Amino acid sequence: MRVLGIDCGGEYTGYGVVEQLDSTPLRHICSGAIRLPARQALELRLMKVCQELTAIIAAAAPEIVAIEDVFYAVNAKSALKLGHVRGVAMMTAAQAGLSVIAYSPLSIKSAVVGYGRAEKSQVQMMVARLLRLTELPDPPDVADALAIAICHLHTAATLERQHALK
Amino acid sequence: MRVLGIDCGGEYTGYGVVEQLDSTPLRHICSGAIRLPARQALELRLMKVCQELTAIIAAAAPEIVAIEDVFYAVNAKSALKLGHVRGVAMMTAAQAGLSVIAYSPLSIKSAVVGYGRAEKSQVQMMVARLLRLTELPDPPDVADALAIAICHLHTAATLERQHALK
Repeated sequence: MRVLGIDCGGEYTGYGVVEQLDSTPLRHICSGAIRLPARQALELRLMKVCQELTAIIAAAAPEIVAIEDVFYAVNAKSALKLGHVRGVAMMTAAQAGLSVIAYSPLSIKSAVVGYGRAEKSQVQMMVARLLRLTELPDPPDVADALAIAICHLHTAATLERQHALK
Repeated sequence: MRVLGIDCGGEYTGYGVVEQLDSTPLRHICSGAIRLPARQALELRLMKVCQELTAIIAAAAPEIVAIEDVFYAVNAKSALKLGHVRGVAMMTAAQAGLSVIAYSPLSIKSAVVGYGRAEKSQVQMMVARLLRLTELPDPPDVADALAIAICHLHTAATLERQHALK
């Protein structure tokens, strides 16, 4: 299975495509960050997110998109900002015929670090190790996106094993 | 000038296209509401918003899009929900080559009712009167969208007059 993880943000939107076939090791396909210039009109920034994600989906051909579930503890202003980018990312996935699945930050960190309250730097380090990358994914948004994809692969593998045991 | 007003919402997203050429009366071009079925996956609902707005822009050929500025007094959960739809609406405008301008709820109500704290029913009534509609725009989201478009036309006309006086 090949998964596109997206970490939505106001300045950077990280993305990462990871593949795992049966019980083979995780394979890093591609990753990066879409940088949104703060000075540009919001509608143009959102269009950039859609265009770049569409190109990434076309190039990497993921089967599903995984994103972070949003905690409502943040304030309304940042929730609205994040919602704009998140809505566009989800819609872009749907336009490409892909489903979107959301995981809590706790599940994502647990999947890669084994600890739900891990620091950003720990996530970067563990993602690099799990994917055998020679450098830390940077900005951290890239590591977060890869972690979301890994979280989905782990979850899917666990569900499959549970299903096999029945 | 021909303006598309959009009133973003979780259940209904209202739209309304209004035209005013020089000092002629306001002209209602088209209006309606995009209904988002609550049971559908969020990404599919967002795709529907994009598809329908794209079709409306193609059919009615507005020159600019006007939306409501969001007050941050709402809670984070509803801000996030609203943000998803609002982000997709803004991006759809940008994809069609249109700029997006935002007006505060106070300016919008003042423009149609002459009173910033007007009730929804007053907005419906005044929008119907200003556009010489035979029925009240319904659901109220349609009246709100038309009010946003009227607000932009009033503002543009005022700016033009001020410019002419200089």
